[in-house]
Amino acid sequence: MNFCSNCGATVALKIPPGDNLPRHVCDACNTIHYQNPRMILGTIPEYGDKIILCKRAIEPRYGKWTLPAGFMENGESTAEAALRETREEANANVELGELFSMLSVPHVHQVHIFYRATLIDLNFGPGEESLEVELFSEADIPWSELAFRTISTTLQHYFDDRKTGRFALHSGSIAPQHP
Amino acid sequence: MNFCSNCGATVALKIPPGDNLPRHVCDACNTIHYQNPRMILGTIPEYGDKIILCKRAIEPRYGKWTLPAGFMENGESTAEAALRETREEANANVELGELFSMLSVPHVHQVHIFYRATLIDLNFGPGEESLEVELFSEADIPWSELAFRTISTTLQHYFDDRKTGRFALHSGSIAPQHP
Repeated sequence: MNFCSNCGATVALKIPPGDNLPRHVCDACNTIHYQNPRMILGTIPEYGDKIILCKRAIEPRYGKWTLPAGFMENGESTAEAALRETREEANANVELGELFSMLSVPHVHQVHIFYRATLIDLNFGPGEESLEVELFSEADIPWSELAFRTISTTLQHYFDDRKTGRFALHSGSIAPQHP
Repeated sequence: MNFCSNCGATVALKIPPGDNLPRHVCDACNTIHYQNPRMILGTIPEYGDKIILCKRAIEPRYGKWTLPAGFMENGESTAEAALRETREEANANVELGELFSMLSVPHVHQVHIFYRATLIDLNFGPGEESLEVELFSEADIPWSELAFRTISTTLQHYFDDRKTGRFALHSGSIAPQHP
């Protein structure tokens, strides 16, 4: 951030009075530009003992498999965002279930949130940001070809819970991967 | 948003290729400026059958009572944000418990998330953004003097659950209030 989005003057990184973190502050119009984590919302769409995964048609992780998910937009609820992303990425009609996972990814300033969902019909297929959309049973999950660790973590919890017959909420944090 | 925070040129509201919502787009450097909901993280700090509330020293809702909570910052997890806000607003030392409520407030582009927490000692007191910090039993909760509906909703669920002896996760959405 170099310029004030309000008045166009240059911004400086400084700690505002009463604050304890450096912010981009405009000396011309006094606007403080806060930057905050973003939420990624999605679903685990279930159909019998299978779930839907989408093969990504966009970077990052082009060609890798993911659950239908994307950035929550202003003006919607977490549930509405999860349903919208499921429609956009997989053209899937689902009934939303319980909140299942909430995983922070502090080093990229994101929180990934997944709901369970039940597929209403089989009229699904790739949206603009997916190459393929397929139903996978647990044995066929392409674990080494998953796009993000929030996806593999969520799926691991999902299949673990399914074996016990009781789904819990899983919250946690994903640390940076070291080489 | 009037100016590009990257290059300082004026921005225009338009739907980028492959998108379906209007964004602030810079014609000079092609940056798309997305705006997304922000997360407010906090706790319900318990001590025996009482919980902590803070009287707000800032607007909005100066003088009204709230749970310790505030905007999640880049670089932290939801749990870290909830603990930090509890320290900042109430100087309270708590052990974090389970995720308890996640309430979307779409008309103000926010999601409010509360964890249960257990007060470790009684060395609490008002931080810079609080006028008073006090322990309240259920009978003494100032329901008509609470700052936000996410607070009253969270507390109502909390006391309802406590009567049953089993705490669940409560997710939902708060609609705009009509006059």
